[in-house]
Amino acid sequence: MSEEINKESSIRLYLRRIIFGTDTPQGRYFDICLIICIILSVALVFLDTIVSIHSAYGGMILQLEWFFTVLFTVEYIIRLYCSTNRWQYAKSFYGVVDFLSILPSYLILFFPGANFSMVIRILRLFRVFRVLKLLRYLSEGNVLLQALTQSSRKVIMFFFSVSLIVVVLGSVMYAVEGPYNGFTSIPKSIYWTIVTITTVGYGDITPVTELGQGIAALTMLIGYSIIAIPTGIITAEISQEMRRNRDLRRCSNCLKLGHETDAGFCNQCGNELQDVV
Amino acid sequence: MSEEINKESSIRLYLRRIIFGTDTPQGRYFDICLIICIILSVALVFLDTIVSIHSAYGGMILQLEWFFTVLFTVEYIIRLYCSTNRWQYAKSFYGVVDFLSILPSYLILFFPGANFSMVIRILRLFRVFRVLKLLRYLSEGNVLLQALTQSSRKVIMFFFSVSLIVVVLGSVMYAVEGPYNGFTSIPKSIYWTIVTITTVGYGDITPVTELGQGIAALTMLIGYSIIAIPTGIITAEISQEMRRNRDLRRCSNCLKLGHETDAGFCNQCGNELQDVV
Amino acid sequence: MSEEINKESSIRLYLRRIIFGTDTPQGRYFDICLIICIILSVALVFLDTIVSIHSAYGGMILQLEWFFTVLFTVEYIIRLYCSTNRWQYAKSFYGVVDFLSILPSYLILFFPGANFSMVIRILRLFRVFRVLKLLRYLSEGNVLLQALTQSSRKVIMFFFSVSLIVVVLGSVMYAVEGPYNGFTSIPKSIYWTIVTITTVGYGDITPVTELGQGIAALTMLIGYSIIAIPTGIITAEISQEMRRNRDLRRCSNCLKLGHETDAGFCNQCGNELQDVV
Amino acid sequence: MSEEINKESSIRLYLRRIIFGTDTPQGRYFDICLIICIILSVALVFLDTIVSIHSAYGGMILQLEWFFTVLFTVEYIIRLYCSTNRWQYAKSFYGVVDFLSILPSYLILFFPGANFSMVIRILRLFRVFRVLKLLRYLSEGNVLLQALTQSSRKVIMFFFSVSLIVVVLGSVMYAVEGPYNGFTSIPKSIYWTIVTITTVGYGDITPVTELGQGIAALTMLIGYSIIAIPTGIITAEISQEMRRNRDLRRCSNCLKLGHETDAGFCNQCGNELQDVV
Repeated sequence: MSEEINKESSIRLYLRRIIFGTDTPQGRYFDICLIICIILSVALVFLDTIVSIHSAYGGMILQLEWFFTVLFTVEYIIRLYCSTNRWQYAKSFYGVVDFLSILPSYLILFFPGANFSMVIRILRLFRVFRVLKLLRYLSEGNVLLQALTQSSRKVIMFFFSVSLIVVVLGSVMYAVEGPYNGFTSIPKSIYWTIVTITTVGYGDITPVTELGQGIAALTMLIGYSIIAIPTGIITAEISQEMRRNRDLRRCSNCLKLGHETDAGFCNQCGNELQDVV
Repeated sequence: MSEEINKESSIRLYLRRIIFGTDTPQGRYFDICLIICIILSVALVFLDTIVSIHSAYGGMILQLEWFFTVLFTVEYIIRLYCSTNRWQYAKSFYGVVDFLSILPSYLILFFPGANFSMVIRILRLFRVFRVLKLLRYLSEGNVLLQALTQSSRKVIMFFFSVSLIVVVLGSVMYAVEGPYNGFTSIPKSIYWTIVTITTVGYGDITPVTELGQGIAALTMLIGYSIIAIPTGIITAEISQEMRRNRDLRRCSNCLKLGHETDAGFCNQCGNELQDVV
Repeated sequence: MSEEINKESSIRLYLRRIIFGTDTPQGRYFDICLIICIILSVALVFLDTIVSIHSAYGGMILQLEWFFTVLFTVEYIIRLYCSTNRWQYAKSFYGVVDFLSILPSYLILFFPGANFSMVIRILRLFRVFRVLKLLRYLSEGNVLLQALTQSSRKVIMFFFSVSLIVVVLGSVMYAVEGPYNGFTSIPKSIYWTIVTITTVGYGDITPVTELGQGIAALTMLIGYSIIAIPTGIITAEISQEMRRNRDLRRCSNCLKLGHETDAGFCNQCGNELQDVV
Repeated sequence: MSEEINKESSIRLYLRRIIFGTDTPQGRYFDICLIICIILSVALVFLDTIVSIHSAYGGMILQLEWFFTVLFTVEYIIRLYCSTNRWQYAKSFYGVVDFLSILPSYLILFFPGANFSMVIRILRLFRVFRVLKLLRYLSEGNVLLQALTQSSRKVIMFFFSVSLIVVVLGSVMYAVEGPYNGFTSIPKSIYWTIVTITTVGYGDITPVTELGQGIAALTMLIGYSIIAIPTGIITAEISQEMRRNRDLRRCSNCLKLGHETDAGFCNQCGNELQDVV
């Protein structure tokens, strides 16, 4: 491995340390600059959609937009250049995100004028997905994701059950309220049920008949109770995860893990425990 | 028992393996096909209620509907045919669901024309309950249901308390706001209270007077706090359930259950524990 | 004590067993009848506020209302008669509730005609508080109440903190949005803040300016996070309560409580533990 | 230290005991009076914003307002006077709050007449921040704050993830629904997403197209599930905090902490434990 590194040019090695490393001052400085650029670039896309700002500063925003596009293009090329395995980086999740965050700006050049206004509008919006570049700084050492992954099977079961309830209640409400009260079809009625059971409650569609209001009240109470279930699952997982981290005490003799925080001796081999924490 | 099986025709035995079994490739393949058919069939019922789709593809949907009805009829007959105890299957929850998921389509044939439009509309909707056939694939090994069942007494107590609060607050709001501000009767006022206490908040009925808004604010804060109670109950149950599953380690000598995950010896008789998990 | 009972007439003793007892068949039968009567009587008050029902069945409802009033009056007199300490019962919470649940019906007789329509309307509504008679069947052995009581100090601290946030955010929103956008005064602005922070969200008052919508978004995210705090408090209390109940194992030698479920010997005196659970 | 106190005048010592102390009857009496004054003074600011009350009692409110301003000024001067380190108090959080709670009233004198109505309106509102003086009575021994601080890193991670979801979903909704259905810009679309994901659901902006309603339903279900995560984090923290407080039993021989509540002997050195709790 030391040989492999020697073969690379020293510039490449230096760049890799800055771009992929997080433990050197330059690496950290580069990360902070990149995060700021991403946020500013996404903020630009946001501001451009406000009509008054677009008409007043449209030209300046376009210039800044190209500045960030060039910046991210340079970043992408350097990342490609200094990867040990270029194809692997290009195929990876972050490689694809980095590529997609510069693509739309260049594609827009190929669709000139008003004929492609719809295409251009969507391409412009795609630049928002630059925000996903931030995921790189989120994913390491994430206890939450671990807890979510471990309880994913239970959460899927939960959503399956909720779907059944939503389908049945939505159909019943369609039958009870009917198209005249806003429940124009079962899909719309199911939309209402989800709005109600998640306790969002827009009020764009509301039950009018007495029976409908009764079923709505029932739906709310169901939603109110079952919101407890995912919370319960996640809480129990996180508690366990925390305890596991706390209990990561290893016996130096038999390498057995997970002793009580206050245990003085290994309960497998009787060896005295060193206090690690 | 081996004799009993021998008496049955080999076809019946073969069919039962496919339909009721989940451990053979054919059984699993049959299950997946059935799940897809159920979902497609329910989706058809949904789409048929959208006016634009009904007028454009009404005929095709009717044909597909009959295709699924025949399919589920064949499934029902085969299930009946290869059950060891046919009457018991027909009476069971899944037997009734299987029967009710084909009944409405045949009943519609007996109510021709516009005279029975109301009956037909309801019968058509009943086909949505086909979705309950999916319960078969949900119910096995469900930790959530266990937790819910074990805490059901506490949850009922909770809903009883909530009902008392809702009745009292609903009546007070009826007295404070009165019929002129949308609180036309106590049942409607209670409907408003449930909408508020579950934090749904449609906004179809809102307090107008200062006193009413004050009581509404109180209702919201109550709802905000007591949502914690079912969550707490369920979370504590799930935590316990998880720990119980984890601790199901049995001493092979004295049959004592519930040893610590990292315990090497039974703390009752001193026998060495086998690692089961 | 046996002497005390002998002094009482046998009828009084018999009645007390039925009314206050819950362990005899008659006592249980009496309780169920009373619960049904309370629910029916409250349902009557509800139905009477629906205009269409009042005009059609007003007379019949009045008669039934008097039937229940007489019934509860008889119940109150019997309870008074067979209490060992009558004054103590009359002063107790349930004594007051029993008295207040019959009082309004008699008071209405003193306010004849339309001159006192407001008084009568309120007196009629007071009959709803009969529902509090049901509390008698809720309060015994309530784990939830115990958990709530034990964490009440923390919950009060929590509400105090929420109040501070609500006051500050409400005032800021009043300054930002102003009277023209529905935030006519600080109390109304605080009402809006409570509607938002509890995630109820009626939509009767909504921010219109960009800055206002930004602060509203912040308010929602705060509400979304701090809803976790009461839940956390209650959950932790309930978990502890459950463990405590589970661990109520007593050493027969030194009377020390609270041994691990799987402990074989008392960790205070070394005596062997009997399995109680 | 005893010398230092002797150097101070006895009046200063006496005042400090009343104002900063909480263990003497006078100190407690002073605290209660101050709390009442703060609440009354803030209530005055609230009432003054109600138009009808302002026009009827405006003069009286102004006088009361000056009464409280003088009171808090006297309090501020005394606090400054009897602090051991005056500059440190003036720079501290409570010193700044105490100063800011009297400043606006005096500043208003410098902006006479209608020319500065906007400035005066904002200065008046600043008086609401007097409510922050109450923080003094909240901050000591706060388990909640401890739990929040310890889990703050996880909570920030959580909000970062939520922000990413909100930005992506908000942009998608802007593309799907467009300006004609109320989603006039991405910032407004993100406001809608926050309203939806936190389950507030005002209903001032609602999706109109089928696709938009589908994405909205997805947004709600995401919000419904991830509300579980902060709850889980906080709950696990509070549970741990409670257990830690309970387990703070120290062995007097080897100073080892964290013994079981029912343990009689230290499990490290075998020394008998004194019952502390």
